[in-house]
Amino acid sequence: MIASLYQQAEQLDAHDPLREVKGQFVLPENMIYLDGNSLGPVTHAAKQRAHEVVEQQWQPDLIKSWNQHNWIGLPQQVGAKIAPLIGAHPDEVIACDSISVNLYKLLHAALAIQENRYTEQSEHLKLARRTRIVTQKGNFPTDGYIAQGLVAHYAQDLTLDYVAEEAIVESLGLDVAVLMLTHVNYKTGYMLDMAYITEQAHALGIVVIWDLAHTTGVIPIDCTLWNVDFAVGCGYKYLNGGPGAPAFVYAAARHHTQLKQPLSGWMGHAQPFAFTQEYVAGKGMLAFLCGTPAVISMSILDAALDVFSAVTMEDVRYKSAQLTRFCLLCIEAQGLLTDLPCISPEDSSVRGSQLAFTHPQAYAICQAMIAKGVVADFRAPDVLRLGFAPLYVSYQDIVRSIDVLSDIINAQTYLDDAFQVKHAVT
Amino acid sequence: MIASLYQQAEQLDAHDPLREVKGQFVLPENMIYLDGNSLGPVTHAAKQRAHEVVEQQWQPDLIKSWNQHNWIGLPQQVGAKIAPLIGAHPDEVIACDSISVNLYKLLHAALAIQENRYTEQSEHLKLARRTRIVTQKGNFPTDGYIAQGLVAHYAQDLTLDYVAEEAIVESLGLDVAVLMLTHVNYKTGYMLDMAYITEQAHALGIVVIWDLAHTTGVIPIDCTLWNVDFAVGCGYKYLNGGPGAPAFVYAAARHHTQLKQPLSGWMGHAQPFAFTQEYVAGKGMLAFLCGTPAVISMSILDAALDVFSAVTMEDVRYKSAQLTRFCLLCIEAQGLLTDLPCISPEDSSVRGSQLAFTHPQAYAICQAMIAKGVVADFRAPDVLRLGFAPLYVSYQDIVRSIDVLSDIINAQTYLDDAFQVKHAVT
Repeated sequence: MIASLYQQAEQLDAHDPLREVKGQFVLPENMIYLDGNSLGPVTHAAKQRAHEVVEQQWQPDLIKSWNQHNWIGLPQQVGAKIAPLIGAHPDEVIACDSISVNLYKLLHAALAIQENRYTEQSEHLKLARRTRIVTQKGNFPTDGYIAQGLVAHYAQDLTLDYVAEEAIVESLGLDVAVLMLTHVNYKTGYMLDMAYITEQAHALGIVVIWDLAHTTGVIPIDCTLWNVDFAVGCGYKYLNGGPGAPAFVYAAARHHTQLKQPLSGWMGHAQPFAFTQEYVAGKGMLAFLCGTPAVISMSILDAALDVFSAVTMEDVRYKSAQLTRFCLLCIEAQGLLTDLPCISPEDSSVRGSQLAFTHPQAYAICQAMIAKGVVADFRAPDVLRLGFAPLYVSYQDIVRSIDVLSDIINAQTYLDDAFQVKHAVT
Repeated sequence: MIASLYQQAEQLDAHDPLREVKGQFVLPENMIYLDGNSLGPVTHAAKQRAHEVVEQQWQPDLIKSWNQHNWIGLPQQVGAKIAPLIGAHPDEVIACDSISVNLYKLLHAALAIQENRYTEQSEHLKLARRTRIVTQKGNFPTDGYIAQGLVAHYAQDLTLDYVAEEAIVESLGLDVAVLMLTHVNYKTGYMLDMAYITEQAHALGIVVIWDLAHTTGVIPIDCTLWNVDFAVGCGYKYLNGGPGAPAFVYAAARHHTQLKQPLSGWMGHAQPFAFTQEYVAGKGMLAFLCGTPAVISMSILDAALDVFSAVTMEDVRYKSAQLTRFCLLCIEAQGLLTDLPCISPEDSSVRGSQLAFTHPQAYAICQAMIAKGVVADFRAPDVLRLGFAPLYVSYQDIVRSIDVLSDIINAQTYLDDAFQVKHAVT
């Protein structure tokens, strides 16, 4: 690598206002981790909490812990910690279940709002019932799968349309009930204009659901200012809550009086411990709870979120954009862009905290990088994805990673048989 | 307490074939725990595994752990360990989500089978579409709540009927699509005749879903022999998987080719990492997976299940029945049954592993017991519930507990203000 890039990286790190935050994470030695957008690392606080919830709560206090250690309040407590990261009020966010399950709830909640509006129209001015759910082509598959599952079972006729990311607004009309989008594309990192799209959709009477899996904890957004209806997000990526950590749901306060979704389990009941026969939804976000919360996983996520208390999302986003820019600079300097075309946006203002490159041997290249201590990831069929979590990735990490990548590409190390063997999870 | 009961308890403990199993649990000193039917205690193995999954898997190996530590295979691995406890084949059980979410999937799967049968009938012999879901009065509330949520949103007209436990079979008819029952009543401990009811329902073409929350790990059942269609069960009661541990789903192999449910998330896809747009359900039980599994909680449950590898369910059930019998003997000997009428069945062959007593001050009595180191639980409005987990409750624990209870009742300790304050979770 050109020596000046190493010097530049040192300079950037020295002036990075977030440089001390890395110390809150427990990162393996001799590993550069560029996969925080798949699974964030453990913090010291999260590790300590994992120990506590098992050995100082569950073990000694058993069932009493529900009150004594406020297990029962964890979904709201965690929600309230996530709220400022997305510009929401503390009582507009709750932690529960997985993104997939939560999208199912939100799709139903959004459709219920439309059904309400439909029945409330005066007869002589009645518009036709809205029959379309629109999502983006190339959205993370589970979002579409869940919508497909819902459409196949829903009481009214519905269709699910996949539209190109560039043509979302143009595809909308008065027949659209729900627009369900992922803010930052999991593969390319392309970031949609959340404020603008939400506004345009609202002008047509459409309810919008945002998937913030690749947003929360790395890109500041403002659900309140942008009038966002509903959102879901991930606990185990940039929030570092551990593998399979609970996800979260956001619903704007203005919708709280009419939240209706079919996964009406006891934890969402107004009085779960009254054990009454009829379901009565709890107030506000409680209506999104279903079964017993995953206390151990949720406790770990709760502790992991404390890393955000001492940083501003503006600093995080500034560094995120700088990291991707600097990475591209290193890649260009190494002359790798011909072999590895970048499919992420050139403009960092519409780019999430990642870069994606295509290569027919992307899987093997990724394996070769991992063998050299640089953990990136592969997305089928041919994408090498580098994720930059600003809380623990340094500019020097990047310059070193691209040196490793460059060696692998130039020496064609990836052709080694060992790197060609595919694993169950890739 | 009559001295001979203490002697009898000593004798029974000395001859208990399960007496050594208690050593695998980490139980608080000076506490007798009669609430394993709410939340089981941690085992040494589970505690060790909690440490390992955080500090020896997630921490050092991060994303690589999905392959390296077989996180991806955990739902099946845990399912296969649960299978022998319910007389199922290893590939008929999978661990995922909560009981509430899983009941929703199973209700849909059962209704899809009925819809299939309906459309496949020849036109001139066609029966009317089945429109009833039947469940028992006094079922655990979440089961009914989930069915209510489904009925309100389902594509066809459905009704949900609550029928008395004594009249289940008589209430069935050709209009019933699904019978959803809890095997052991959470409050009274009354155990339904699973084999008989399943057979009778099948004779009428009804699909049956069993909730095994208070069964699995304490009462042996035989899903294969009894021709059970579907079941769910709990990971955190008698399976000791920790607070909010994942639940499990059972589906008979004969239904595996036609499993259809709307929570079709990516983990249930035939090729989750191919990232294709169209959902194609994975084989067999995989079709019940939805979002990313709660790896930490599921790992702990996986380890907790190892306690069952060295015991037979017959020994467990034998002791379970003996414990409830012995407890009743102690209660009678103390002359408590007038103050505390028992609402559990007298016949231990139709009684789960618990006893329930009513008292207008049941809540305060329960609090007073807890203050004296005997953890029981309260179920609204007036039930004191004692649960007997045969793997770690001894006969001497029982005789001591009833001594404590007797003192509380006779001295009316429960009238103390401190015991009258209700907590969020009761």
